[in-house]
Amino acid sequence: MRNYKELLRIVNQHIDNIHLEMQPQKLYEPISYLINLGGKRLRPTLCLMAAELHGANIEEAIDLAIGIELFHNFTLAHDDILDKSETRRGNPTIHTKWNENVAILSGDAMLIMAYQYICKSKSSRACLQVFNKTAMQVCEGQQYDMDYENEIIITVPEYINMIRLKTAVLIATSLKIGALAANATKKEQDLIYNFGENLGIAFQLQDDLLDTYGDAEKLGKTIGDDIVTNKKTFLLIKTLEMLKDEKKNKLISILKNEITFSSKEKKINAVKTIYDSVGIKDITQDIIDKYFNEAFCNLSKIKTVEENKQAIIDYTNLLRNRLA
Amino acid sequence: MRNYKELLRIVNQHIDNIHLEMQPQKLYEPISYLINLGGKRLRPTLCLMAAELHGANIEEAIDLAIGIELFHNFTLAHDDILDKSETRRGNPTIHTKWNENVAILSGDAMLIMAYQYICKSKSSRACLQVFNKTAMQVCEGQQYDMDYENEIIITVPEYINMIRLKTAVLIATSLKIGALAANATKKEQDLIYNFGENLGIAFQLQDDLLDTYGDAEKLGKTIGDDIVTNKKTFLLIKTLEMLKDEKKNKLISILKNEITFSSKEKKINAVKTIYDSVGIKDITQDIIDKYFNEAFCNLSKIKTVEENKQAIIDYTNLLRNRLA
Repeated sequence: MRNYKELLRIVNQHIDNIHLEMQPQKLYEPISYLINLGGKRLRPTLCLMAAELHGANIEEAIDLAIGIELFHNFTLAHDDILDKSETRRGNPTIHTKWNENVAILSGDAMLIMAYQYICKSKSSRACLQVFNKTAMQVCEGQQYDMDYENEIIITVPEYINMIRLKTAVLIATSLKIGALAANATKKEQDLIYNFGENLGIAFQLQDDLLDTYGDAEKLGKTIGDDIVTNKKTFLLIKTLEMLKDEKKNKLISILKNEITFSSKEKKINAVKTIYDSVGIKDITQDIIDKYFNEAFCNLSKIKTVEENKQAIIDYTNLLRNRLA
Repeated sequence: MRNYKELLRIVNQHIDNIHLEMQPQKLYEPISYLINLGGKRLRPTLCLMAAELHGANIEEAIDLAIGIELFHNFTLAHDDILDKSETRRGNPTIHTKWNENVAILSGDAMLIMAYQYICKSKSSRACLQVFNKTAMQVCEGQQYDMDYENEIIITVPEYINMIRLKTAVLIATSLKIGALAANATKKEQDLIYNFGENLGIAFQLQDDLLDTYGDAEKLGKTIGDDIVTNKKTFLLIKTLEMLKDEKKNKLISILKNEITFSSKEKKINAVKTIYDSVGIKDITQDIIDKYFNEAFCNLSKIKTVEENKQAIIDYTNLLRNRLA
């Protein structure tokens, strides 16, 4: 069993080998640009871990892993247009560096390339079934996310379902198709899928928490962006659910920009004061822990040599502590 | 062997059965809207014809045919954004009726649905190989098309290669995967693919010709739009190649909008006069005939009962005379 650093190296090596020196340049160059901006390579790494966990060689899952990473990058290219994001990992997004047309078309090409890699695998038939469904769910999640931007009140289950579709199912599928490459049983496939789904939800909720309560230096990003942009997060949705009367109306007025602030900091502090009044930090941490624990519970049920699980447990703990 | 009207009815029946009454509505409703705007259903019809030609039942190719039509509609949704087209078949495009974000995301979903349908086929493994390559080529063609918008001089081979990628390879692939569903030999697959590629190029060149020299009433569209919008067409590219000195400079000045006109009609007449001076109508008709003849030549080499080819020959002649 390789640890995540060894697997990350293998993933990056194969990403370097994707043949993108092709014409027309404006189609292939943006793909090369985006995929080489780096990142954790969370999904392909988990795919390879699941394959090894169930006894496959890395070689049997690597094309699936690269396919998943290409799909993830396709979603980034298009989501950045949808969200009008100008930077990604500190660099201009494709539509900012080139233009929207280039970002649409090179995104399309990445989606097709994802299929090309998945089709290369000898487990492609079973993997495509899972992948097709997941790909549609990711689109559904993105549309719900856009729908919710225009709504003030969203329920917690609606929000959890949205992040499940937008983020968690792809992480779950990365693991499941790794297991499929290893001919894991249906039950093992379901367990590793559920592990990934719980991990994905935990990870997204943690994102929400850290954006407001994290350490700017440790995270290497500014704190409070979600509050400044009125982003729908678990913190906001759960706080709105718990508040009553004036306080609730005040928060809604802030969201509707009816109450304005002379600086970003003042807005962040005002909202944080409301968040603190309901104890949202602990509530969110509790639910994050619940999802991480549920994930570990799924993992514990997988019948394999216990020490084979160590790589995946260590990696999950690194992610949980944001050290990976 | 069913004729094209019977096959069209079967295709439309299956398109009606695509399950699109799903949530979120803003993802699925635009798909249903676009795919129900109608159209010739050229690609799925040809797919079923190729399947029957090589002895398969319609049922063995119908999922492939629907997958191809979904892919075609995906390209329409995204191309309409890229080209800023406001109407399609007399109705608002998705990004006009909803917005660009909806058109990007529902387009993505159509591409994934195309794969879902292709994966349903028992010939999916071989078909996916062909389809993946073609899908990338269509993206390449679209990017070349956008690149060429900003260039004045394009060579005829560059233009033919662009329309081959953007239009002809998908028509060729529709036929080839129909043949694959019928377990046709490699040679038969190549012949029907080449038939489709020549047909597709002929069809696009005919589009170019009719936009300038067609009969508005018969076509049900205005004439001269390509000239008004300075669109790169075979007529323009070949005329520029043939012209010299002043006349060439005059046409270039028109393309650069350095010479302006008081009405669309005056611009159309001015360019048409230049076109007529080199005899572009006959030159274009000759090359269209060359590609149609080449297509029929490919078809003639396919070893099957000659009368089985009649449906595809009749359909091609209808398309040639714009009666289908």
